[in-house]
Amino acid sequence: MKQTVWHHLQLCAHGDPHDTIADAAIAVQDGRIEWLGAAQELPAAYRGWPREDLAGAWVTPGLVECHTHLVYGGQRADEFAQRLAGVSYEEIARRGGGIVSTVRATRAADENTLLRTAAARLEPLIAEGVTAIEIKSGYGLDLETERKMLRVARQLGERYPVAVYTTFLGAHALPPDYAGRADDYIDEVCNRMLPALADEGLVDAVDVFCERIGFSIAQSERVFEAAARRNLPVKMHAEQLSNSGGAALAARYRALSADHLEFLDEAGVAAMKEAGTVAVLLPGAYYFIRETQLPPLDLLRRYAVPIAISTDSNPGTSPATSLLLMMNMAATLFRMTVPEILQGVTRDAAAALGKQHVHGVLETGRHADFAVWSVESLAELAYWIGRPLCARVVRAGQTVYAGRT
Amino acid sequence: MKQTVWHHLQLCAHGDPHDTIADAAIAVQDGRIEWLGAAQELPAAYRGWPREDLAGAWVTPGLVECHTHLVYGGQRADEFAQRLAGVSYEEIARRGGGIVSTVRATRAADENTLLRTAAARLEPLIAEGVTAIEIKSGYGLDLETERKMLRVARQLGERYPVAVYTTFLGAHALPPDYAGRADDYIDEVCNRMLPALADEGLVDAVDVFCERIGFSIAQSERVFEAAARRNLPVKMHAEQLSNSGGAALAARYRALSADHLEFLDEAGVAAMKEAGTVAVLLPGAYYFIRETQLPPLDLLRRYAVPIAISTDSNPGTSPATSLLLMMNMAATLFRMTVPEILQGVTRDAAAALGKQHVHGVLETGRHADFAVWSVESLAELAYWIGRPLCARVVRAGQTVYAGRT
Ligand SMILES: [Zn+2]
Ligand SMILES: [Zn+2]
Repeated sequence: MKQTVWHHLQLCAHGDPHDTIADAAIAVQDGRIEWLGAAQELPAAYRGWPREDLAGAWVTPGLVECHTHLVYGGQRADEFAQRLAGVSYEEIARRGGGIVSTVRATRAADENTLLRTAAARLEPLIAEGVTAIEIKSGYGLDLETERKMLRVARQLGERYPVAVYTTFLGAHALPPDYAGRADDYIDEVCNRMLPALADEGLVDAVDVFCERIGFSIAQSERVFEAAARRNLPVKMHAEQLSNSGGAALAARYRALSADHLEFLDEAGVAAMKEAGTVAVLLPGAYYFIRETQLPPLDLLRRYAVPIAISTDSNPGTSPATSLLLMMNMAATLFRMTVPEILQGVTRDAAAALGKQHVHGVLETGRHADFAVWSVESLAELAYWIGRPLCARVVRAGQTVYAGRT
Repeated sequence: MKQTVWHHLQLCAHGDPHDTIADAAIAVQDGRIEWLGAAQELPAAYRGWPREDLAGAWVTPGLVECHTHLVYGGQRADEFAQRLAGVSYEEIARRGGGIVSTVRATRAADENTLLRTAAARLEPLIAEGVTAIEIKSGYGLDLETERKMLRVARQLGERYPVAVYTTFLGAHALPPDYAGRADDYIDEVCNRMLPALADEGLVDAVDVFCERIGFSIAQSERVFEAAARRNLPVKMHAEQLSNSGGAALAARYRALSADHLEFLDEAGVAAMKEAGTVAVLLPGAYYFIRETQLPPLDLLRRYAVPIAISTDSNPGTSPATSLLLMMNMAATLFRMTVPEILQGVTRDAAAALGKQHVHGVLETGRHADFAVWSVESLAELAYWIGRPLCARVVRAGQTVYAGRT
């Protein structure tokens, strides 16, 4: 039986910087929180336990990364360089670039290569305090490769000190071999890929890219129906480039989240509120594609829709591996407040995964998954740009990362 | 005599990704480059030296950070949080916020505190391959505190494996005690502070913040005259918020650089070209203050003005400690090309310090200051967002940083 009292720490147990304990203690037994609260109220039963002194540092719940495409083959840096040098999208497409090149590279890569390259992107996230992460498929667009991606995602969860939740995103893009036959591809997604992968235990949720350049409302609904038949929760890439009513559809299917949402309208906001669907905002993609349409923060606030923040880590529109930086972008670009941002990477991000009872909050009975920060003020987590701030990451009571400072 | 041949590396010796050697070697003796070139052309004299195998990694010159305000007391995260929560600039000023709060905190801090807090911001820069950095004063605004800041900057250079160049920025802002007496303060800067600090060997260059909210053209010229009397090179914070003709003035004084430049006009560009003044662009400040006026890249290109990139690391308008991220912002926000960006943090950044013969390029006779990168393509240095990419930093032939991967 492993017992530890973490003490000499400032505790922000619920991700709310207005709800903190200045001198707190956390009693952990066998990876779970037995007790937490003000140090001077530590019950006698825990007073004799071995102690870990955190030297007055801030402690928050481990961060939750709720929207990533972390597993893929290749990268698109050279395409990025070409675009900066003035090569047109059309020319890049003609040269085989764009998402098609990632699909090609992902199909060609073996599991070990995918594991190694995704791990190199996962490690900096863990070093920023991330203890739970969602990883989507969607660069295979055939059964075999989608399976490979999801298996790699599962392996990351086994090999790294982070809880991995997998999302099947077969309906990410139309594979070249289905050009002009989107409905046939949706058949394949719904009737063959999803059932097979779900049977193999590889699918925690189902996502679809609903957009003019993605799949239609009707096609998205077919995917949601297929998920419902399997009792799998759904999510949606919605209203990123235009308003297509995707968020309202997602709400009708009680989606865990609708993500991106720059073009979300009030009807969509109201539907999301009614359904308890979390708004996942992705400032890295907004920044990288130089979007100017801001997500409707005021509406989301007025309807009290929970708002999460994530990297959208992907090779085409957000090659980002820093959730802290996304927190700064949420502040700088979206003018979200510090409390909104902290809850957006803890409690509300956990809700976007349907895991609000497991992650995102520190309380008795939960796993002791927390991050220790080298900051004087929690606001610093959103303030600094590109600065390593995480001193230590603890998962299930074990220190799994220790910063240089 | 320490002799090493670094080999099994891809070499980008001049910061130009179109001028590389696929399989290169670097022979280093006592910290200096004796020879570099294609591995198969390694002269017999070096073939018996001890070897360091870099496993095919990319090597560039150590990066040069040419514009920072790294030394200061306190930080302004809580002010940042207040602004996001809707508190007005006026109210924050009334509460004692803004640059005045940094001046107060810097005056109150002892040298050890300034050293420790600046070191915590310097370390992540070194971990990104920075081997030379400029550090400005400018939060003291009195002789004693400006001296303290510059002494701390010098100490950083002694204690950390990085060349530090100091810039006296007494004319950064008007100290509260001189309200309404800007010319009197410029007297103090020119006749007392600058001579004293120069005599103490604390000043490598002199900078001034020329702006409506800073100092006028006439005041800036007085500072430049005082620098000229001491034979010190000058720099200028110019045309950041408005066009005031500062860059042209800087060019008249053959300034090393004019920095920010969002509102620079063609006359200023032409003057800079004629004077050999480097354009230092600061995308972190552009991003953080949500500027929309882009610096005139096309004009700078047309006149072939050298362009450098830096963090502008400071608590008020760019709390950034990642030069790699600035490279991404230079690409994403300013649409600079990858070659421009790489040269902007090596050769051209060295020129912005007047140190183009010391830093920014790898060649025989120079110190072996280089960065080793965990990338397949140099374009990745500008592509990834918030990803640690530096595998190793070598200064004067010694490994001074080794990354986790
Ligand atoms: Zn996505
Ligand atoms: Zn500056």
